[in-house]
Amino acid sequence: MRNLKFEISYCGSRFHGFQRQDNATSIQGELENVLSQIIGKDSHCAVNGCSRTDAGVHARHFCFNVHIQSEIDCKALAKGMNALLPFDIAVLSCEEVDMSFNARFDAKEKEYIYLSHNSEVRNPFLQNLAYHYRYPLDETRLAEVAQLFVGEHDFASYCSARSTVKSTVRTIYSFDVKRGQTGDNSVEFIIRGNGFLYNMVRILSGTLIYFSEGKRSAEDIKQSLLTDNRSLAGVTLPAHGLYLNRVIY
Amino acid sequence: MRNLKFEISYCGSRFHGFQRQDNATSIQGELENVLSQIIGKDSHCAVNGCSRTDAGVHARHFCFNVHIQSEIDCKALAKGMNALLPFDIAVLSCEEVDMSFNARFDAKEKEYIYLSHNSEVRNPFLQNLAYHYRYPLDETRLAEVAQLFVGEHDFASYCSARSTVKSTVRTIYSFDVKRGQTGDNSVEFIIRGNGFLYNMVRILSGTLIYFSEGKRSAEDIKQSLLTDNRSLAGVTLPAHGLYLNRVIY
Repeated sequence: MRNLKFEISYCGSRFHGFQRQDNATSIQGELENVLSQIIGKDSHCAVNGCSRTDAGVHARHFCFNVHIQSEIDCKALAKGMNALLPFDIAVLSCEEVDMSFNARFDAKEKEYIYLSHNSEVRNPFLQNLAYHYRYPLDETRLAEVAQLFVGEHDFASYCSARSTVKSTVRTIYSFDVKRGQTGDNSVEFIIRGNGFLYNMVRILSGTLIYFSEGKRSAEDIKQSLLTDNRSLAGVTLPAHGLYLNRVIY
Repeated sequence: MRNLKFEISYCGSRFHGFQRQDNATSIQGELENVLSQIIGKDSHCAVNGCSRTDAGVHARHFCFNVHIQSEIDCKALAKGMNALLPFDIAVLSCEEVDMSFNARFDAKEKEYIYLSHNSEVRNPFLQNLAYHYRYPLDETRLAEVAQLFVGEHDFASYCSARSTVKSTVRTIYSFDVKRGQTGDNSVEFIIRGNGFLYNMVRILSGTLIYFSEGKRSAEDIKQSLLTDNRSLAGVTLPAHGLYLNRVIY
């Protein structure tokens, strides 16, 4: 048995999230189907992803591992997968790793980017790739208040009601707000942390948008981290602006 | 009667080209429908575009003019149109111009960009937005040979057989090949000229790709401009890499 680590990139628009589902197209489903085609149908390959991204969410660098019997060369496998996968999923790399490596549980840090297109008029080329926000954003002021989230906090207020996790304590390592990384009118919310709750990045970014609009104060944000009160946080921004940017092991 | 000049941007993926068609979605059709909704159904607004882009071709800055009776304010009209148009068409500006202005016949210069994503592995976010070319491209060498096209030439060899124009003589003002304008792995073919034949930019760019692959020599290119021989030129690259970048009056 071998353990292979893959790095992939995908555009999530057409998928019902990463996780395999019975009656809907998923990234995991596509990957497992293609792996079975290459390696043989008898050996079912269970793809173990670093996280479960939601419907419409994108990934620039997503990791998964898979245990296989086959002696196939890593480069040949990556090339074969790219030939069979749909255009919106691409294998960037594949390498053999220690059998103990687990893409989900060994992730030490994840970086998400929430991408907004900040301009009065929309950009027709970013329909499912960025959140169009038409009012002025002061990235310096937002970056300043974003520092309130950095550190270890109970993010119970920044979590969808659908979440069922035991602990809502997470550590945010950094939270930047930068303009123009991917075009003059882009504003990116760049968040690194040891883990994220369901919808957490979308609610954190939405809270900064509410702050910008005067609907939340720095004091509200401080309070929101001391209680379990979803209404103190801001709106959940749409999925299509969210990118899993990288995972560190 | 007033004459209004519009600047728009559109992602052509979903459309059967610019020109209005009976049973297919077109940019012109969408624009005329929305204008009629705002200005009144009785006054049919005929949109006069600067060119007829093909199915799948994009425009960053496209111009059209329209004659209207209505006294509606230009800014309000642009805003109203953006509210009614689909996401993949955006009105960038609208201004009143002299009645004599004609977006099609007064165009002095057009700039097209053919965008290729030049990398071994495809980019899932550029599915319909760039031509994926996986082999190395030497942009300096291509830019050098591209200078053969600059000037006034008979481009009969660089024109789809479907074309029915009288003269195939056109003037190319400049032809650049640049890397990294829109991302590290992008190679852009930037062509300015006084007018272009049907498929001309896609064949010119395809000829440089053939040159890169050793399928055409500089001598072949020189010959191609002296005769009417489509087979001396190169392949017609796909529509989805082509952008009308700007029009100068």
